[in-house]
Amino acid sequence: MSMNQQQLEAFVQSGFAQAAFCGDLGIRPTACGPGWVETELAILPRHSQQNGFVHAGVQSTIADHTAGVAAATTVAEGFSVLSVEFKVNLLRPALCDILLCRAEVLKAGKHICVVEAEVFALKDGAKRLFSKATVTVAVMPIADTQPR
Amino acid sequence: MSMNQQQLEAFVQSGFAQAAFCGDLGIRPTACGPGWVETELAILPRHSQQNGFVHAGVQSTIADHTAGVAAATTVAEGFSVLSVEFKVNLLRPALCDILLCRAEVLKAGKHICVVEAEVFALKDGAKRLFSKATVTVAVMPIADTQPR
Amino acid sequence: MSMNQQQLEAFVQSGFAQAAFCGDLGIRPTACGPGWVETELAILPRHSQQNGFVHAGVQSTIADHTAGVAAATTVAEGFSVLSVEFKVNLLRPALCDILLCRAEVLKAGKHICVVEAEVFALKDGAKRLFSKATVTVAVMPIADTQPR
Amino acid sequence: MSMNQQQLEAFVQSGFAQAAFCGDLGIRPTACGPGWVETELAILPRHSQQNGFVHAGVQSTIADHTAGVAAATTVAEGFSVLSVEFKVNLLRPALCDILLCRAEVLKAGKHICVVEAEVFALKDGAKRLFSKATVTVAVMPIADTQPR
Repeated sequence: MSMNQQQLEAFVQSGFAQAAFCGDLGIRPTACGPGWVETELAILPRHSQQNGFVHAGVQSTIADHTAGVAAATTVAEGFSVLSVEFKVNLLRPALCDILLCRAEVLKAGKHICVVEAEVFALKDGAKRLFSKATVTVAVMPIADTQPR
Repeated sequence: MSMNQQQLEAFVQSGFAQAAFCGDLGIRPTACGPGWVETELAILPRHSQQNGFVHAGVQSTIADHTAGVAAATTVAEGFSVLSVEFKVNLLRPALCDILLCRAEVLKAGKHICVVEAEVFALKDGAKRLFSKATVTVAVMPIADTQPR
Repeated sequence: MSMNQQQLEAFVQSGFAQAAFCGDLGIRPTACGPGWVETELAILPRHSQQNGFVHAGVQSTIADHTAGVAAATTVAEGFSVLSVEFKVNLLRPALCDILLCRAEVLKAGKHICVVEAEVFALKDGAKRLFSKATVTVAVMPIADTQPR
Repeated sequence: MSMNQQQLEAFVQSGFAQAAFCGDLGIRPTACGPGWVETELAILPRHSQQNGFVHAGVQSTIADHTAGVAAATTVAEGFSVLSVEFKVNLLRPALCDILLCRAEVLKAGKHICVVEAEVFALKDGAKRLFSKATVTVAVMPIADTQPR
């Protein structure tokens, strides 16, 4: 899609606002450009697993969704995306107040788009990488992404 | 661990009760045995993505956590597990009232355990498979799974 | 494709005969049906990694290719498949004389097909599972699978 | 391991020389440093799949092995690595004379090491990325990586 920065930001914003589960968790976009999106999530006690770390499911959700919206910024008008599969490596137990994610398209294809997403926190100004995901999405006419 | 069925059920129950994010979503175990666990989740509007389907992050969370607890039933006393990585294929858009998951250990190793998890719904008595995950967990002394 | 068993076997046979790297390794199909293919490979010293085990690359090749041909048996006339991605778990070091693989389609879609492939050896009549792969292939018109 | 550049190069060289399947394909290291290795492979007709592209199995082999040796440069004396799992995205059909690979450690852990490997060719001085893999390896005492 050919959008100016303001349109792009509105598009990305709505890509999160329309997904109830992103709202439920508290994920929100903070920056974007063509083919990339950044998000953040204020970590609450309810986001944790049994030992107090951020649950892998929370990390996967922010990675998958940020990746999907990043991919969506690259597709033609009238098309949208659905996740086909993703793989995430949990590199170290995640403890933080604010979880950050940056997703960037690795390959934008006509039918398939591959996106990488890093989930991290900032500590003393440096990136502490918690997990890294590779997300494959299918590009399809918007109608095909809707329930029938 | 050598546990009788009652101990196993209590162990599995607490494997979900202690994980805040599982409680937040509403995931609960329904059946288990050595090396396998089954769970369910009543789907609410807040679990959906932009088109009304169950969010990939919800499917990943139930798959990862059910797999982790299934793996935990196979480790020696004093040991626990942490997810190293997982990969999930989203086979079709998920629409359902009750999401089900069954995780089963494929290979129980001393250091690494590999688990498969299927996420599905029942429809007319048949399994409608939404996604399938392969989860790799590390087996480690309980102390190493705690925040330091 | 609607093929009788004889046509199916010829189709599968040619799916390996035309792939030079399968011939180079020595991979050959041994059985098939709609949506599944079985193959075998006589292990030679040149297939090994540094410790004498069957190289992960050999296991990946037989898994990926057997999966691709299994997927190809499910697509419509005029269409073919290309691998989009795969993930393989190496469950234990592989030592054997004959490596076997069975690939079976998990979900046959119009655009995307997901296949599972197990790589194993028989020992005392039982399956010794070395690795398990999940392979995602794209279904596309035959012309789109050819170099331009 | 603490090695000077000459020792590191000898170590990496032997990491390929001792793996018969790497020699069989023709994979050879071209550069290395602590935590990274680069390799190349002159593509021959026998490396191709049915349409003349470099087989996914060839790409996986160079990615997995280059990643494994990159990981091995980061482990302590007396330890070695074995691949636990990997995932590879095949981004576009691969046509080239010389296949290149660069693997770089993303996270070097005491028990688990995660490595990223890019498989590409140079065209007009630019990188043409064919596939990208994420490889998880287990770090273990050398004796545990040997057949018993």
